[in-house]
Amino acid sequence: MKTIDVCVSPDLMHLYDVKNTAVVVVDILRATSCMTTALACGIASIRPFAKLEDALAMKKKGYFTAGERNGEKVSGFDLGNSPFEYMRDDLKGKKIAFTTTNGTQAIAKSIGAPEIIIGSFLNLDAVVDHLRKTPHNILIVCAGWKGKMNLEDTIFAGAVVELLVNVANPICDAPLAAQHLYNQAKADMVGFLKNSSHVKRLNRLDIHKDIEFCLTPNQYCVLPVLRDDELVTPSNI
Amino acid sequence: MKTIDVCVSPDLMHLYDVKNTAVVVVDILRATSCMTTALACGIASIRPFAKLEDALAMKKKGYFTAGERNGEKVSGFDLGNSPFEYMRDDLKGKKIAFTTTNGTQAIAKSIGAPEIIIGSFLNLDAVVDHLRKTPHNILIVCAGWKGKMNLEDTIFAGAVVELLVNVANPICDAPLAAQHLYNQAKADMVGFLKNSSHVKRLNRLDIHKDIEFCLTPNQYCVLPVLRDDELVTPSNI
Repeated sequence: MKTIDVCVSPDLMHLYDVKNTAVVVVDILRATSCMTTALACGIASIRPFAKLEDALAMKKKGYFTAGERNGEKVSGFDLGNSPFEYMRDDLKGKKIAFTTTNGTQAIAKSIGAPEIIIGSFLNLDAVVDHLRKTPHNILIVCAGWKGKMNLEDTIFAGAVVELLVNVANPICDAPLAAQHLYNQAKADMVGFLKNSSHVKRLNRLDIHKDIEFCLTPNQYCVLPVLRDDELVTPSNI
Repeated sequence: MKTIDVCVSPDLMHLYDVKNTAVVVVDILRATSCMTTALACGIASIRPFAKLEDALAMKKKGYFTAGERNGEKVSGFDLGNSPFEYMRDDLKGKKIAFTTTNGTQAIAKSIGAPEIIIGSFLNLDAVVDHLRKTPHNILIVCAGWKGKMNLEDTIFAGAVVELLVNVANPICDAPLAAQHLYNQAKADMVGFLKNSSHVKRLNRLDIHKDIEFCLTPNQYCVLPVLRDDELVTPSNI
């Protein structure tokens, strides 16, 4: 049976070998939820950048610039980090350069894996269906918050572990911890997360609607994957 | 109110400032359970070493040498990593040089904190009673397994968070995750941990009796603290 593991923080990525591994990058609030929404709503591609200045430089090449630092939209950028911003008709077919506090850093640390997939609750079943079929072992990389683990990414990882229980074997304690937390949270994820540090941080930014949306499973059936430095949704991967 | 945080792996210690912080180091299976037992049973002091050869060199200075690598006693060492080994009458009043795969490394990374305390389920109430009174913020450092988080150290951290709920405020998501896991585990900790990676590893070494003992709260009321490079149990700290 293939194995499944969870890296609870990008700062622990040195412990994991991504060769022969399907990596799922997750930053529920809100980078990977935005990326999923954007690609589901017809955006052509998203190029992730760990550094803010590298994303900004893409403006000259016709890209829309998007992302946040510390939960807030960056001055001079076209788009922020709310999934609702990515539903605009005028963005269809366009390319986006994207950078966020944690999510794009997690993607950068996953380079080298044969598959890098973007996961969120919004496309949970699409991710799980693909992982069921992949020949590779599975690693879910939680973006966390500035190196520390967070609850929302961990419970997403736990949902994937739980849904793959018959096809992928948790290889150490992080996937088991994530699975336990998901099972505790699943009946009321918004309630479970109401004391979490990032939800508190975002509540100060008054975006409760974003939080509820990002915690709603299966709004879209897209599977964003990294191909030649860009996130796209190929018809087959 | 003072704050409480949990570092789920020594490999994340660069994220934490231990100045003005009471650090509790925990390696339930089995380093800090052994240390607690040893000091409760009359051993004079324990000197922790991250490196095996440094511990072994203390033999010439009259120390007993103790510890493990990969869960097994090291060849040439006087004592292994089972708490029952530390109950011997002939060890009373003696000094021990101690090294383990994870526990002593976690102590080494906590140097600089004004208080470094050894925690285990065996002395849970003694730890909590002290933390209730300390003027410092609190950080629980989980030894984990070779950089990865483990369940047994995390649920111990969660027990401390839960017992201090009225006096210390969880400052980010790791203490909340630990608290949730502890609350799920507390009715049957041995059962909860039976699929954990380290319990499986130790079951192969046939030490179920150790595991049950290490998960039994409040066998001893000692509070081991680091003083001048040695763990001791001063009458007041």
